[in-house]
Amino acid sequence: MKEERYTPNQAAISRLVGEIKQAEVKPLILIHGGGSYGHPIAKDHQIKGGYREPSQLQGFAKTHQAMVTLNGMVLEALLQEDIPSMSLPPSAFLTTDRGRIRFLELRPILKLLELGVLPVLYGDAVLDSTLGFTILSGDQLAAHLAIKLNAGRIIMGIDVDGIYSRNPKTDPSAQLIPHLTLHELREVLKHLQEETVEEADVTGSMAGKIQELIPALKRGAQALIVNAEKPGNIYKALKREQVLGTTLQAV
Amino acid sequence: MKEERYTPNQAAISRLVGEIKQAEVKPLILIHGGGSYGHPIAKDHQIKGGYREPSQLQGFAKTHQAMVTLNGMVLEALLQEDIPSMSLPPSAFLTTDRGRIRFLELRPILKLLELGVLPVLYGDAVLDSTLGFTILSGDQLAAHLAIKLNAGRIIMGIDVDGIYSRNPKTDPSAQLIPHLTLHELREVLKHLQEETVEEADVTGSMAGKIQELIPALKRGAQALIVNAEKPGNIYKALKREQVLGTTLQAV
Repeated sequence: MKEERYTPNQAAISRLVGEIKQAEVKPLILIHGGGSYGHPIAKDHQIKGGYREPSQLQGFAKTHQAMVTLNGMVLEALLQEDIPSMSLPPSAFLTTDRGRIRFLELRPILKLLELGVLPVLYGDAVLDSTLGFTILSGDQLAAHLAIKLNAGRIIMGIDVDGIYSRNPKTDPSAQLIPHLTLHELREVLKHLQEETVEEADVTGSMAGKIQELIPALKRGAQALIVNAEKPGNIYKALKREQVLGTTLQAV
Repeated sequence: MKEERYTPNQAAISRLVGEIKQAEVKPLILIHGGGSYGHPIAKDHQIKGGYREPSQLQGFAKTHQAMVTLNGMVLEALLQEDIPSMSLPPSAFLTTDRGRIRFLELRPILKLLELGVLPVLYGDAVLDSTLGFTILSGDQLAAHLAIKLNAGRIIMGIDVDGIYSRNPKTDPSAQLIPHLTLHELREVLKHLQEETVEEADVTGSMAGKIQELIPALKRGAQALIVNAEKPGNIYKALKREQVLGTTLQAV
C-alpha cells in the first residue's frame, strides 16, 4: 500500500469503520498510519532525520498536510456512520526529543473519552526539540498512550496475519506465531532485524513495531496483531472473539 | 459570509494568502474564523452552551470537522504559494474552562516559529473542563497568544473598515474611528453592546471582539482592525503601511 502515492483505499476505510461501529467498544482510541499518503513525501524530503536546510520546510509541511487529507477521509467515514469522532494531529499536542515523545498534552483526549467521542490520531510529522522536526510513528504513539492511559489492550491492524518466524512476504517457510511473551519476543526480534534494511519504511518495519510495544507490554498491556485487510478481523479483535493473529504479553 | 453554509470564497482565500506571501513578515501566526463553515452547525447543535445530551456529540464532531475542511483550503493556498505552514487545531492542544482558555500546550507553536514555519490556527469547537465542550473564538485565541508570546501586534481582518461609532451595516450615521485608547474603547463598547443581541453569532459581535482584545492591549500589544475584503489592506497592515482602519492601544 505504500508504494504508490495517494491511492486511498476508500472501500477499506469504510469497511474498517463499519467494523468499529458494529463492535461498539468504549473507551477506544483510533490511530492510523500514513499508507500511501505520508510516507513518500516524508522520504523524499528526509523528514525523519530532522532539519538540515530551509528547503525541507515545505516538505515537512506537505508531509503533515498529506496526513491531514488522509485523516479527513477516515473522519468522513466515521461521521457517516454516526460515530462522534474528533481527530487530534499529534504535531499539535506533542513534541519529541530525538524522535521520542517528550511532552504530550493529554487533556483533550481524556475529555473526549469522558464525553464518549472517539479520538482519532495518526502517525505524523512532528516538532522535535533537538532535530527540529521528525516523523512519529503511530506505533510509538499507541504504546505511549497505552502506558499513560493504563490501557488494557492495543490492537494493531496490519497487512499480514501477525508475527511470523521469518518475513512471510519473502520467505515461504515463515510460520505464524500465535502467542509471544517478552522473553520469546527477543528471540524473534533477532531474526526480524536482519531483514529490517530492505523492508524498512520511514516509520520502521515489523521489528520496529514490536520494539515500540515492549514498554507497554512490560506495564501489563496486551497487544494483538491481526490482518486488517481480512474483513471481520478488527471487529473480532475488538469484541475479544477468536481471531487469527499474534497475541503479545509480558509473560 | 456567515448566512449561507459552505460557501467557500476560494478567490478571497487565495488573494489574502498572496498578500501574506508578498509581505514576508516573520514571526507571524495566522488565525482564521469559521465563516460559513463552523457557525451554522455550531448554532444548530448549540455547541457553545456545552454538553447537555448525547445527540449533540455528533454536532460537536461535525462542527470541528467543518473547520478542518475550511482550514484545509487555507493550507492548500499557503502551500501553493510555497509558504511552509502547519495547522494546529486548537481542540487538540488546548482546553477551556467555562469558555476561557485554561491549559494551552505552546511548544509546537514555538518550535514552528523558530523553524520559520507559519502556524495556522482557527476558531474551533474545543473541550471544556466544566461544559464538556464549547466554541472558542479566534479572537480569544489571538489575544491569549499575543499575551503568552509577548506579541507586539494583532491584525484583525474583518468585513467592515474598522470600529464605528455605531453599527455601519444598519446605521448610516456611523463614523469610522481611526484610533482608540482603552479609555475611549469603554465608551464605544457601551454603544456597541446595545446592538449585540441582533448582530451576535456564536463567537460574538464586534463588541465581543474588542472585549477579547483588552487584556492584550493592557499588556502593551497594539491591535489594528482593517477590512480584509479590500485588496491590499492585509498587506499594508502587515508592512506597517498607511491603511484605513482602527488602531487600538492602551494609551
